[in-house]
Amino acid sequence: MPPLAASSTNPAPKPPRPPTTSPTLGLVGGGQLAKMLAQAAQQFGCEVVVLERTPNTPAAHLARTTLLGDWDDPANLLKLGAQVDVTTLENEFVASESLAALEHAGHAVWPSSRTIRLVQDKLLQKEALAGAGLPLPRFVAVAEPADIAAAALNFGWPLVLKKRRNGYDGKGNATLRSPADIASAWAELGGGAGALYVEEFCPFVAELAIMIVRGRAGESVAYPLVETVQQNHICHLVKAPAAVAPDIAQRASEIARLTVESVEMVGAMGVEMFLLADGTVLVNELAPRVHNSGHYTIEACVCSQFENHVRAVLGWPLGDPSLLAPAAVMVNLLGAGPGSGTPHGLAQALAVPGSHPHVYGKAHSQTGRKMGHLTVLGQTLPEALEKARHAAGLIRFGDSPIS
Amino acid sequence: MPPLAASSTNPAPKPPRPPTTSPTLGLVGGGQLAKMLAQAAQQFGCEVVVLERTPNTPAAHLARTTLLGDWDDPANLLKLGAQVDVTTLENEFVASESLAALEHAGHAVWPSSRTIRLVQDKLLQKEALAGAGLPLPRFVAVAEPADIAAAALNFGWPLVLKKRRNGYDGKGNATLRSPADIASAWAELGGGAGALYVEEFCPFVAELAIMIVRGRAGESVAYPLVETVQQNHICHLVKAPAAVAPDIAQRASEIARLTVESVEMVGAMGVEMFLLADGTVLVNELAPRVHNSGHYTIEACVCSQFENHVRAVLGWPLGDPSLLAPAAVMVNLLGAGPGSGTPHGLAQALAVPGSHPHVYGKAHSQTGRKMGHLTVLGQTLPEALEKARHAAGLIRFGDSPIS
Repeated sequence: MPPLAASSTNPAPKPPRPPTTSPTLGLVGGGQLAKMLAQAAQQFGCEVVVLERTPNTPAAHLARTTLLGDWDDPANLLKLGAQVDVTTLENEFVASESLAALEHAGHAVWPSSRTIRLVQDKLLQKEALAGAGLPLPRFVAVAEPADIAAAALNFGWPLVLKKRRNGYDGKGNATLRSPADIASAWAELGGGAGALYVEEFCPFVAELAIMIVRGRAGESVAYPLVETVQQNHICHLVKAPAAVAPDIAQRASEIARLTVESVEMVGAMGVEMFLLADGTVLVNELAPRVHNSGHYTIEACVCSQFENHVRAVLGWPLGDPSLLAPAAVMVNLLGAGPGSGTPHGLAQALAVPGSHPHVYGKAHSQTGRKMGHLTVLGQTLPEALEKARHAAGLIRFGDSPIS
Repeated sequence: MPPLAASSTNPAPKPPRPPTTSPTLGLVGGGQLAKMLAQAAQQFGCEVVVLERTPNTPAAHLARTTLLGDWDDPANLLKLGAQVDVTTLENEFVASESLAALEHAGHAVWPSSRTIRLVQDKLLQKEALAGAGLPLPRFVAVAEPADIAAAALNFGWPLVLKKRRNGYDGKGNATLRSPADIASAWAELGGGAGALYVEEFCPFVAELAIMIVRGRAGESVAYPLVETVQQNHICHLVKAPAAVAPDIAQRASEIARLTVESVEMVGAMGVEMFLLADGTVLVNELAPRVHNSGHYTIEACVCSQFENHVRAVLGWPLGDPSLLAPAAVMVNLLGAGPGSGTPHGLAQALAVPGSHPHVYGKAHSQTGRKMGHLTVLGQTLPEALEKARHAAGLIRFGDSPIS
């Protein structure tokens, strides 16, 4: 797929305000990613306006204004656009047609509606990547349950059935081990015309990820390749850099860069990959935004993914993605149960030298909800891992105290 | 001076809210120091309430609420105290009697009114330090102009005449080279009973500073000794660590630690020192708050002065003050003239690798006003210095474009 000039899919930004006014950044979504983007923008003297469906989200207190409303409604996006210089996203679940309406009204939106359209539908995403010659698991659209059995003839069992849209943290995926699993998975995922596709199962030895930030003019920076470890399909920890052979790291980085090119991303993109036993690297999924696998960059890199995303969408030069220490480990802090959004044990975790806990400020904890994260740098991965696990283990979200 | 138990000068904090509510931090003052404190607090999920005299100050958009009013008015401090768990200061120009009223109403205030009373009056400050046996230039109170001539008999010329209160960035100081300068300096500084004191002139070879953060229980951490370079009496740049012999650095650090003990500081304190040609280190002045000489710690240290101040006043364990790189240089970005608070040349400065510009978001620039700062890390001080000077030189605040 030949790259299009960015301007062909995204109209020129509105005439800029006088050069003595800092740009204002519009954020669709007000969760923890928006909060950390707002912090980066505020360092540059920029203000932030958030569009969210509910009040009191993590980014709310940092925003000049929080507009309440459904972000799929173009009228709400236009209200946001009218208050800001550039609009960007903290999630990819915004209707690309609504983003296109914002662009057509002359507002700057990065990433573009075209990129979001390609990425938010995983079947279109896979087709775009396959068209660009990138390595990925075999996949095929399924219109009815019989198509799954047909795919199994090519791909073998197990198979992974996936929703094309709105899946995250394992939600919207089902692993099928035999024909007996088809009917229940089809029902569970709400199968129907154009809703699902099927992918071959990848017997990976590690899950890798890399953050790429690409600017408006096509320039890009690549963060180190990291290994992500999932628990119950949710990112549990991230090890930076991934302990793989240099040639694998280099190949993965090149694949990630081409992936980001192929969907003409502007801003930060997380590229999740599978590493197979023979050293093969396959693209798993894309996140067209700052990503959990890049939270470690706040403390561990010269310029964080959040700062670089802000730089990219504002059209400013990108920053240095290099590590400041030989190793870093990030552990997600998930809700252990329902309760308040304030943790037990924060002071104890702060007593672990070099521990960097982040508390998102969500009003409520739920089992498995991302409530915060914690990063530790180290001279080696095992050292950082041990400290990070220890410190994170002292923090608990949810009303029952640590036993 | 024997150390007092902190509780004797500052009543026990209010009964804490349930452990599932994050503490809210009250900030007296809403400038750039309050902004950077708010950013640190928000990382922990804490909210911030600001008391300021004018709206739209740098910290305003980060605060849950900004209360408008004179911070010397105890009624305004009590309004702030009622909304927060702990109150702290971004400047020392708050009437210590008003802070004491807040303490007596049962609110937690750190640093305590007693510490602020001792430090905000430079004559009391010097007397406290002298009483603790710390090395400092000779000084004496002056009640009338004739006292200055008398002091010169002891100290020689030149002499430095200083206001006891509310001086900063060289404002409130005058250097007198002969008896002919006495009358005009006395008039300029508003001489009168109890207003001024005089100090011997120190022929320093370098100005040094160190940030110490001391916790409620008396534990403390010391950041690296830095060299500060002033232009027109305003901090122009900071080199970390200071290029001095290890024994000088060690002695300066010990002097700073004892200084902070002697005034029973809780929170971050900047200790400014003179280095004389023979290696003598003398205490110059104290800032009982986060300080311009510690801004480099945001990027250069494991835990910044802002995060450590928040930890200290909330009663949490202190973080690691170690440098992440061999060297760091911070350059202040001062207004070059009147105009908007948004700089020209920010994008150009961002193109300098490893440049970390901070724009405070002040509404207006004035000549010499602190509008932002810029930090660069390096493998050596000269490398960091060159890059920082280059990047900072690309940024200009004030309406006339860079010539």
